[in-house]
Parts: sequence; structure tokens; C-alpha cells
Amino acid sequence: MTPGPTAAHPVPVLPSRGPVRPLGLAQVSVTGGFWGGRQAVNAAATLAHCETWMERLGWLANFDRVADGTTAPDRPGWPFSDSEVYKLMEALAWESFRTGDEGAESALKRLTARIGRAQDPDGYLNTCFGHGDQPPRYSDLEHGHELYNTGHLLQAAVARLRTRGEDELVRLARRAADHVCRAFGPGGRDGLCGHPEIEVGLAEFGRALGEERYVEQARLFLDRRGHGRLGDIPLGRAYFQDDVPIRKADVWRGHAVRVLYLSAAAVDVAVEHGDDELLDAVRRQWDRSVARRTYITGGMGSRHQDEGFGEDWELPPDRAYCETCAGVASIMVSWRLHLATGDVRYTDLIERTLYNVVAASPADDGRAFFYANPLHQRTPGRPADDGGVSPRAESGVRAAWFDVSCCPTNVARTLAALDGYLATTDDDGLQIHQYAPCVIAADLPDGRRVAAEVETRYPADGTIRVRITEDAAAPWTLSLRVPAWAEGATLTDDGRARPAAPGTASVRRAFRAGDVVTLELPMRPRFTWPDPRVDAVRGCVAVERGPEVLCVESHDLPDPALLDALVIDTRGGPLPDPRGGRVTGRSPARPDAGWPYTATRPHAAWLIPDAETGPDGSGGEGFDVPLRPYHSWARRGPSGMRVWLPSSS
Amino acid sequence: MTPGPTAAHPVPVLPSRGPVRPLGLAQVSVTGGFWGGRQAVNAAATLAHCETWMERLGWLANFDRVADGTTAPDRPGWPFSDSEVYKLMEALAWESFRTGDEGAESALKRLTARIGRAQDPDGYLNTCFGHGDQPPRYSDLEHGHELYNTGHLLQAAVARLRTRGEDELVRLARRAADHVCRAFGPGGRDGLCGHPEIEVGLAEFGRALGEERYVEQARLFLDRRGHGRLGDIPLGRAYFQDDVPIRKADVWRGHAVRVLYLSAAAVDVAVEHGDDELLDAVRRQWDRSVARRTYITGGMGSRHQDEGFGEDWELPPDRAYCETCAGVASIMVSWRLHLATGDVRYTDLIERTLYNVVAASPADDGRAFFYANPLHQRTPGRPADDGGVSPRAESGVRAAWFDVSCCPTNVARTLAALDGYLATTDDDGLQIHQYAPCVIAADLPDGRRVAAEVETRYPADGTIRVRITEDAAAPWTLSLRVPAWAEGATLTDDGRARPAAPGTASVRRAFRAGDVVTLELPMRPRFTWPDPRVDAVRGCVAVERGPEVLCVESHDLPDPALLDALVIDTRGGPLPDPRGGRVTGRSPARPDAGWPYTATRPHAAWLIPDAETGPDGSGGEGFDVPLRPYHSWARRGPSGMRVWLPSSS
Repeated sequence: MTPGPTAAHPVPVLPSRGPVRPLGLAQVSVTGGFWGGRQAVNAAATLAHCETWMERLGWLANFDRVADGTTAPDRPGWPFSDSEVYKLMEALAWESFRTGDEGAESALKRLTARIGRAQDPDGYLNTCFGHGDQPPRYSDLEHGHELYNTGHLLQAAVARLRTRGEDELVRLARRAADHVCRAFGPGGRDGLCGHPEIEVGLAEFGRALGEERYVEQARLFLDRRGHGRLGDIPLGRAYFQDDVPIRKADVWRGHAVRVLYLSAAAVDVAVEHGDDELLDAVRRQWDRSVARRTYITGGMGSRHQDEGFGEDWELPPDRAYCETCAGVASIMVSWRLHLATGDVRYTDLIERTLYNVVAASPADDGRAFFYANPLHQRTPGRPADDGGVSPRAESGVRAAWFDVSCCPTNVARTLAALDGYLATTDDDGLQIHQYAPCVIAADLPDGRRVAAEVETRYPADGTIRVRITEDAAAPWTLSLRVPAWAEGATLTDDGRARPAAPGTASVRRAFRAGDVVTLELPMRPRFTWPDPRVDAVRGCVAVERGPEVLCVESHDLPDPALLDALVIDTRGGPLPDPRGGRVTGRSPARPDAGWPYTATRPHAAWLIPDAETGPDGSGGEGFDVPLRPYHSWARRGPSGMRVWLPSSS
Repeated sequence: MTPGPTAAHPVPVLPSRGPVRPLGLAQVSVTGGFWGGRQAVNAAATLAHCETWMERLGWLANFDRVADGTTAPDRPGWPFSDSEVYKLMEALAWESFRTGDEGAESALKRLTARIGRAQDPDGYLNTCFGHGDQPPRYSDLEHGHELYNTGHLLQAAVARLRTRGEDELVRLARRAADHVCRAFGPGGRDGLCGHPEIEVGLAEFGRALGEERYVEQARLFLDRRGHGRLGDIPLGRAYFQDDVPIRKADVWRGHAVRVLYLSAAAVDVAVEHGDDELLDAVRRQWDRSVARRTYITGGMGSRHQDEGFGEDWELPPDRAYCETCAGVASIMVSWRLHLATGDVRYTDLIERTLYNVVAASPADDGRAFFYANPLHQRTPGRPADDGGVSPRAESGVRAAWFDVSCCPTNVARTLAALDGYLATTDDDGLQIHQYAPCVIAADLPDGRRVAAEVETRYPADGTIRVRITEDAAAPWTLSLRVPAWAEGATLTDDGRARPAAPGTASVRRAFRAGDVVTLELPMRPRFTWPDPRVDAVRGCVAVERGPEVLCVESHDLPDPALLDALVIDTRGGPLPDPRGGRVTGRSPARPDAGWPYTATRPHAAWLIPDAETGPDGSGGEGFDVPLRPYHSWARRGPSGMRVWLPSSS
């Protein structure tokens, strides 16, 4: 293992090896469009919003109280509130570099000084344990989240180290990591944290510093899990993946964020150690979980009860939990798997998750968030009375803050670092995975320079123009991801169009500045059908347009109650629409008949269009139903909503 | 209000007025059959099982510790563990009378003495609050369950009072009730309990003693709820129905057992006070909740997260919670509504719930229980390693005991008192609601005697013979409930058969001993279709046979994995079967294809029988699938199971 680059390569994930190498924020800059707009709101509003709330609730003052020796067992916030501070710091570090924003920079320095005062001389840093009358350090590994918090501190330090180099945050993180290695390394305590995160933090911090022992400590934690070292809990041992060793597991189960953070770390360790058994284990779990335990939105985690994966095929749209943080964590895993394999299935899922989970969470003003992301909201949500802390994750309205408020800072750090997830290079060229207006300039290992500008309104339309911005001294390959849904895409190079099948479309030549390669993705709304084993949406169809899953909102219906009784005519396709889609619906009028289970088949008469309707399914009781991107739901006020639409056939 | 009868009329619910009057355990005795067998197991095994577990876990010793002044804040058990003792005592009181069992009688006396020692001089009786270093009395009304516990104590005392008359249990319950009235009555604290139950306990205790002030205290508690007097909790105020006053509410919501106990009390108070507004409110809530929030099994409460009702049409079969206790509580409400109205829709639902929720819970040996009653078990459950306390309610196997162990004692008291839910009288005769082999003898208000013996193997078959056992001095009316599903039933009297439409079938005449009236209910298995708004089971059909919902179990499939991939041929009806049913299934072989949402319609090819199959849908890949009563599932070992079967059309 060689020391990783620091400010030269500002990127959240940087494996030592692999078929492709991620470009960082110094090589890729989003310049606008769908994601640029969200990044701007994140910078202008969300970052300060998060700091304000954490100040208001005393989560920041927790550090002061430790420093001042005035802390108490009943400090405000959950044991993991420290991690929210660190996730905000990570976001600020990326943002400070991405835009040079002085506000972000000064906020980061302010927070660094504040948390630094609370660090014990031996490196331990936590506001909930180990000081005054608090419980002793590591006295509740199941629920205490001490190592989890430290993991997020390390991720913040990675952002700092890779954007500005070593500073006080990096130094205090190093002291914290050293403390963890002493406490839990060989000869230390044979324990692990109930919430994985220290593993992915240690692995990346180790890569960023070239400190193999941190990666090895991550491996130790990984291999300790799954043997019943943690205590029994009512939700069961699978909740924190202490049921089966990660190398033996076949599927993601238990708490979704926990298993996904764990899997991200496993990929990191597998790549650093050349540990194919471990890498294959995560790939196997990804395969089955994506095939059987993932929503069409990319959302993961079906269950409210434990914020966890359900069983295979258990994907209820109404009670879909699909925690925003699980979306972020899914992207973390898929990106690492892509970097380890070059397989574009992983970047396909990232796109889906970005548009249909991450983008759904923040409000337009960046000051409210979805925590859960259901695919069916039966009754419009009710805003919290006072815009205050929402006790519930499933209110159907974006909330300013939560009692457990993991999602806002997770969205913030993802958006601030998003430029680092767009493109990679290999020995022969540039691969672009996510399409946003951006400028890209990087050097290949042999010194060849690849430089391009992406011009696109995607996903408003499907045209992605890649304009080369520097003459090439020698040929190189430009590769563009063609999403799996994009049957019929075309690639135009030098005026010549050719079909571009899903996967990767490439052009290899000695590009000249000004050359344009255009990828045209088909953006006509399309019907998408579920595997019949997804019981909860049997007989339904979804409509997708490009990377966006569409939905029906009660705002757009003649009567909001129709949301319960729509039947969509699927004999044609959805109507094309410049933005979004439209289907023909029917609203069967059925009286409430008491007991809802009957010997007659009420649906048969409803679903089959009768002879009096036109051949296109319109006429009769039919009417057009507009569809909008799922990520836009409830932005016009609380609404009923559904992604899966009962189908006429 | 006149004092209610005591030992003369041993019955759990005895309103002062109403169109019908329940017969008690002195008037009705089940003599065998489906329910008689379950009552025998309850008596022989379950009652002692419950006492053994409560001794083992220290829930009984909690009372000793209070009496001895040695209790501590960390006493074993949840705050509501006292109620389990009282529910067991209620069961023992009924059982002692029902069979004259001396073991039950002595257990009850032993427990009475034991809890009596723990009662404070002012009547307060609780092992979790108010003694030693415990939190003060009523310091946690939201979660403390003190009044809830007292409510169950009062129900136990009602059972004792109505079976044996006043004794020490009744006297200590009276002291407890008086304490509650002083503490929370006019001039007392304006509070209420987070878990309704005191209301139904007070109301019935008041009826049993002829003490109106207890009924009035119940009314006070009822009307206090719904105004936000309880504190805010993360699950929301609807969890304990403090969101909307019961008179204003339109539907059951929040924690299912809570709202059902509350509604039972509301019927009691409404009847005693002639309060039609209150009665109508409960009827309205029953109507909508039964039409939109109830499973085909009668199970109530869709959500695991809060053991609560979901929204309208939110009825997932796999994540159905359907707590056994909610089934018991639903019967409590429906029985009271029937007594208040004479409407047989309520006794229809009781039958459904008895066979498909209550009967499903206890194991054949009466020593293990289902807590949750899902309609779809994807993966066979795993028994607890050591037969010990199950931390989880949803294990898919019956467990000996639970961390929260409300269901075993609730089943026990329901079975012990079941004879009191079978029949009623009015001014002109006898109404039989639930069919079991039994003897019935009662006097009408004017002194006419009605006496009969019911002979039946129901639900093994559909023949119910009511043999009159005493000559009548004057005509009277025998009325038999014809379930809503029983289209085609016939009533035979004196050799003459006539159609008996769903509702009530009656014969009025001067019966002679030996006369036989026979009700023949159609027991051929039948398809039942869901309202299309029950999204989670769209495209599926259930099979019912008489009052039993049937299911497919993995034990009966050529390959357990077929449970995920069955498609049932619905072009004919289910095949008749002497017991249970049988349908023709198909097992489409579809390879795992990765991402489960596709532009093609995989199910179309699966579901439509192709030309190579015979006209009856058999042949090809078809095979016969046996169906068994839902209540029998997982009795042959852990199994996968589903009630709702994907339909071919």
C-alpha cells in the first residue's frame, strides 16, 4: 500500500487498485443542471440549516460540556448525535473545496476547534460516554454508537485530508483512530460496534494516509461480526448483522444502513487486501438483494419496525421505508463495487438511487427532508405543527429536522461530494457514468490528458453532448454508460450515428478540441412491470421516463379519492410528454359495500374496458392522468401519491 | 341501574338493557367439538403453563416483594406484567365455575391471597410504582399501565363475582376501584391511562355490583381521552387514541388492542347511560374499520411498528400483525355491539375471528402461542433455541412465552369464558350465534323455559342439529344465525326444509322435547375475492370453507420454493374436499433475471394457461394444491404459508 494522494485527488473513495480510478473534485466540476441546482441549494441553505439545528438542540454544545467538564448522563440528543456533527463537517470540507466557499471553510474550522476541545488526551472523543457521571466508555457496544461516531469523524477527516491536506481535523482524527486501534486492535478488546461505520471510516482514512494498520483494523472489525459477540436484542441479531459472518452471508438483511455501511467497508478491505472471497461475498449479496429486495426507485429497506430489509420479494409500496440514508449507503456500496470491477450495473443502480431516493429527500429550499421514501402515500401527510423536530420518519411531508436526524447531513455530504461520483479513468481513457453539465480534465497514468465538457439538460431531455476541450497527443477512449433501460440509444461521433446498446458506448481516437460525441437516450415514458413474486404490486405497472420513476399525485386528479380507485389502460404505451408522462385512467365507481371480501369478483368488471369505450381505451369513464417524477412528489403541498398503478390488463 | 345478578348469571358482559340478553356459563355448556377440545387443553395445560411462566420470571414474586417491602425499581417484567396475573385469575375464575375444577379454584385463591398482600391500605395495588425507590404512583400515565392493570383486576373480579359471589378478590378489587375513583374522579386528577382497559373494567364491575359510580368513572375516562392530555410520544398521539375524542372519531386507528378495549368500554357506558351518540360513534368506527382495515381472517392491526391499524386498505398479508389480543378485543367489541343492537353482522365477525385468529394462536398442547397472525409467511420460522422467552412477536412459530406476553392469558380467559358468547335470549326466545356441541337451558323474562341441545361436528361439516330438551308450555322462537357467507343454507324443522338466507333463520312454535331443528350450512370450499382497493392482494384469491379461511402451506408443496411462484387456476371453483380444499396450481419456471422490474410483462405468459393445457386448467405444469384451515398452519412444524393465492384470471 502506498500513501494515497491528498489534495491532488479530492475524492471520497480512492482504492489502491482496480480497473478504473475515480476522478475527484479537482478533475470534475458540475456546472449546473439537475444536480448543479441541488448542489447550490445544499451549499446556500442546507449546510447552515444543519448547523443551526444542531446548535439549537444542544448537539454541538455537548462537545463544549465535555471540554468544560460539565456534561451529564442526560445530555441532549441520541448517542449518535456526534456523528451528525461529523457528517456536516465532511460536507463542509467537500463544499469548501468544491466552490471555495469561505463560509463553509470557516464553519469547518469553527467546528473542528469545538470538537477538538472535547477530545481526551488518549484520542477518545465522544460526548455520551466516559465523562463525569456518564456510563463508561464502550459499556454499550450494541447501542452506544461510539465507534460509529468515530467512523464518521474519520470520513470527515478524509474529506479534509484529500482537499486541503493535513490540518487539525486530520490530526484529531488520527488520534481517534489510533485510540480505536489500541482499544480494539490485537491485544485489545475483542469487540465491535452495533452500528457499522468505523470500518468504512478506518479503511478510507488508512488509504488516505497510506496507513495499512487502519485498514487492518477495519478488517478485524469486519471479521469479528457475525459470530454473536454483540448482545441479544429484541429486534434480533440480524439487525446489526451479527448473525452471519459477512463472508458467509448471501443477502442483505437487518437494518439497511448498517448492512450497507458494512458492505462498503468490506469492498474497501477486499480491494486493499486482494481478498477476493470478501469481494465476492459482497457482490453475491448485492446481486440477490438488488434482484429481490430493492424497490424500483432503488430504495432499500422495506420495514419500518427495524428500518430494515424485509425478506425476498417483501416490497410493499405503501409501507416502504426506503430510508434516505440507505439510499446514500447503497450508492457508497455500488460505487466501490464499480471501482473494483468496472461493471456498469453498479453505476446504473447509482443513477436510479440518486434520482429516485437522494433527489427526493430535500425540499426545494434545502431546509426540509424526507427520511422515509414510500412509493405509495394513501393520505396526504400533515406538516409538524411548528416546523419543529419531527418525531416520525414517515409523515408524508418533508420535515425540517428529526429526532433521529441522520438523513439531512447524509444528503448534504453526498451532494457536496457528488462530483466525485461522476467519472473514472482507466489506462486508456475516460468513462462518464452520471450525466450532468460538467467540465472534466484529468491525466491518464501515462500522461495523456483527457479533457471534456458535458452539455446536457438530462433528464429533461436525453441528449448528452461531450465536447472535447483539449487536443490529444495520442488516441484515447471516451466511454459513456448507456443505462439498462435505454434500449434504442444512439451514439453520434463526428456526425455518424450508430446504435448504442445498454452497457457502455465507446469512441477511441485522437480527439481534437471541439470534437463532439453525442449520446442520445430515449426519454419516452415507458411501462415497467414487476416480477410476479413482488406480491405487493401484483397487477400493477409503473411508468418510468429516463432515469426517473414517475408517479401519480392526488393534486393532479379530478378527485383525490380517485387515487384509491384508478385503473390504468395499458393497451397502448404511456403518452409521450415533454416532461413526465400521462396515462389514461378509469375511475370505477364502486359503493362501499361493508365486508370487503366477496364471492363475486368486483375487480373483473372494473378492469376490463367495456365495449363502449374507444379502441384506445379512452372514452367512457376514462380520463388522462398526468405523471410526474417521483422525486418531485409533495413539493406542491402534502399529497397522496402512488408509483405502482393498477393495470387494466 | 339495578344491581346485576351475581352467581345466577355467570357471564363476562351483562348490559342492563338491550334487545338481547347473553346467556352465561350456567345456561350454556359446551360439551365437545372444535371449541370443547380447545377448552379442555386450555384447562389442562394453558392455565398452569401461564402460572408457571409468571412464577419463573418473577412476575408473581413482584407482589410478594411489594408486600415484604423489598421491591426495587428494576423489578422483573414490564410495567404491565401485573395484568397477566389478573388475566390468568379471570381465566381461573371462569374455569373454576365452568368445570368445577378444584385446581383452578385453589390456584385462584392462592393468587388472590398473594396479590392481596401487596395492596396498599388505600386500595392502590401495583408492583411497579409507588413503593420503595420506585417511581411515584401515576408518574408515567403514558406508559406506566397502572390503571390498565387495575382494569384487568376488575375484570377478574367480575368473573369471580358472577360465578361465586363476593369474596376476597371482589373485595380487594372494590378497594382498588374506589381508589381509582378517588384519585381520578371529580375533584381528583384530570388524567387517563396510556392503555385503555380501566374503562371496560370499571364499567363491567359497576354493572356486576350495581354501582353506577364505577360506570360514571369509566365515562369520565372515556371523555377525557382525545384532547391531548397525555404527553407526546414518538409513535404519535393516535397510538393511544388521544388524538380525537371517541365521539368524534370515524375509524379505529393507532394501537389496535388499545382502541378496541376503549371501544368495548364505550359500548358499555353508552348502553348503561342510554348514550346513543356514543354508541353510534362506535358503530360508525366498526363499520369503516371492518370494511377497510380488517383482514379476511378478522385479524386487526396491520402494522408491526406500533401494533396498530394502518390506513384504509393497508392490509399487507405478509406483514400483517393481527395480534392475537386484538382478535380477543375485537370479539369484546362486537359482542357488546351485538348485545346492544341484535345485529348479526357483529356475531358473524366474532365467528370469523374466533376460528381464524383466536383458534390459530395456541399450539395443540396449549403451551405455545402465536402473538402475530400473518396471512403470508415467506420463510418458515425458527423456534427459539431453548423454548424460552421469545423476544419477537413474529417468529412464524408458536412460542412458549413472550417478553410481552399478553396473548397467552388473553386466549386463556377467552376460552374459559367462551360458553358466555354463544347464545342470547330475548323476550320471545333463544338465539344461537356460535355453533358448538352444547346444552342450553334458560328462562325467558316471563318464565317460559327454553332448553335445547346442539349436536354438530361444525366446522368439520355444516350440519347443526338443535334438539329441544324440554316441552314448552307456550310457543317460543328459536333463532339461528346464518353466516353471511352461507348462501344456500337450509333450515329443516319437523321434516320440512326451507331456504335460510344469511342473517337469521327462525322457528316459532310450542316445541316438544325431542323436536329437532336442523340448520345445514354449505361447506364446499369457495373462492373469495378482495376489494380492489386492498392493494396488497390485488390479483389474488382466497379460499374459504365455512367459517374457516384456508391456506397453502409449504409442507404440502412438491417444492417449498413454489410458495413464491404459485398461480391458481380460478376458472372452476376450488375442488370439494371432505375437510379443507384443493385448487389446481401452476408453477411457472422463471429464472432469476437480476433487476426485477422490466419492460416486458413476465406475468402475462405465466398467468394465462396456454393452449396445451386442458380446458380445466390441469395438465401442462398444473398440479393440485391442498388447502388447510389457516388456524392449523405451522402445527406440523415451521412452514411457509399463504392465504391469498395469485389467480390465473
